Amino acid sequence: MAATVRHAQREDVPAILSLIRELADYEHALSSVEATEAKLLSTIAFAPSSSSSTDASELTSPTKPARCLVLTSPDDGAVVGIALYFYNYSTWRARPGIYLEDLYVKQSERKKGYGKRLLVELAKEVVAMQGGRLEWAVLKWNEPSIKFYESIGAQMMNEWVGMRVDGDGLTKLAGLLD
Amino acid sequence: MAATVRHAQREDVPAILSLIRELADYEHALSSVEATEAKLLSTIAFAPSSSSSTDASELTSPTKPARCLVLTSPDDGAVVGIALYFYNYSTWRARPGIYLEDLYVKQSERKKGYGKRLLVELAKEVVAMQGGRLEWAVLKWNEPSIKFYESIGAQMMNEWVGMRVDGDGLTKLAGLLD
Repeated sequence: MAATVRHAQREDVPAILSLIRELADYEHALSSVEATEAKLLSTIAFAPSSSSSTDASELTSPTKPARCLVLTSPDDGAVVGIALYFYNYSTWRARPGIYLEDLYVKQSERKKGYGKRLLVELAKEVVAMQGGRLEWAVLKWNEPSIKFYESIGAQMMNEWVGMRVDGDGLTKLAGLLD
Repeated sequence: MAATVRHAQREDVPAILSLIRELADYEHALSSVEATEAKLLSTIAFAPSSSSSTDASELTSPTKPARCLVLTSPDDGAVVGIALYFYNYSTWRARPGIYLEDLYVKQSERKKGYGKRLLVELAKEVVAMQGGRLEWAVLKWNEPSIKFYESIGAQMMNEWVGMRVDGDGLTKLAGLLD
């Protein structure tokens, strides 16, 4: 039995939340996790449940932009890896693409090629949709990950820096011209 | 008559493409622009045309993830600024947000607060959707823009670096495990 990658179903949410918390802990930011099962259920576009009578996947929308791949263990079918992503856009190419927001494989399941497996599945989806790019961000101090990403063909976007407005800053900006 | 900000309609596409080309030229990358009117028409979710009998906006989808705000001149109603964006996701917050892919105001229309106007509109949309973040990226050498962004409450995400797979690298990654 091989590891399987599939789109997340609603019943995977407890396992997904558990891995999100493990990842945040690894990034020294567990206290920043505001995600709950209810919030994940309302913001991720899920594949139909195995037990569902409908076979349509939930559609993405502005308030439900995320999709999630899960990788299940060949031993017991448990979810041991996740790739949470959404659809981005390149203006110059006028093409969609995929932005990988979070990739995580459980500590005990490392060195099995599972991270690569998830990235390959996302690359396949970008190619299938005639998209232009697969993108993500990595912490600069995370050299093992950067080396791994470069080994599978990713380039560092060194000339660019991200900008963010959130929390009180967001409310303030929204009201700046009122 | 004041400058107006509204969602782009299909008939704004020639003006949008013209501004995209101006922006690419400013970033020394005009030769990278593959966008055409046809490609923009098929990948941006537009607001209904003024002359349309339907009053529904086009829905975003994986292959049509982008939306576009246009700012029109108070003098003649011409489109002199654009904000191209899509919906992103914060896993830790389990909340959607907005990623601003490209912001541009025509050279001759600078210093009128139009860039700020467009950013404020996006911040309002994030707040209205109960989203968590408004994010974008800027070229590190573009100090005037960085100072402007910081002045309206944006923080630099210095600890992170972007990774990208595109072109041949994308096809190669998609087939890596075949």
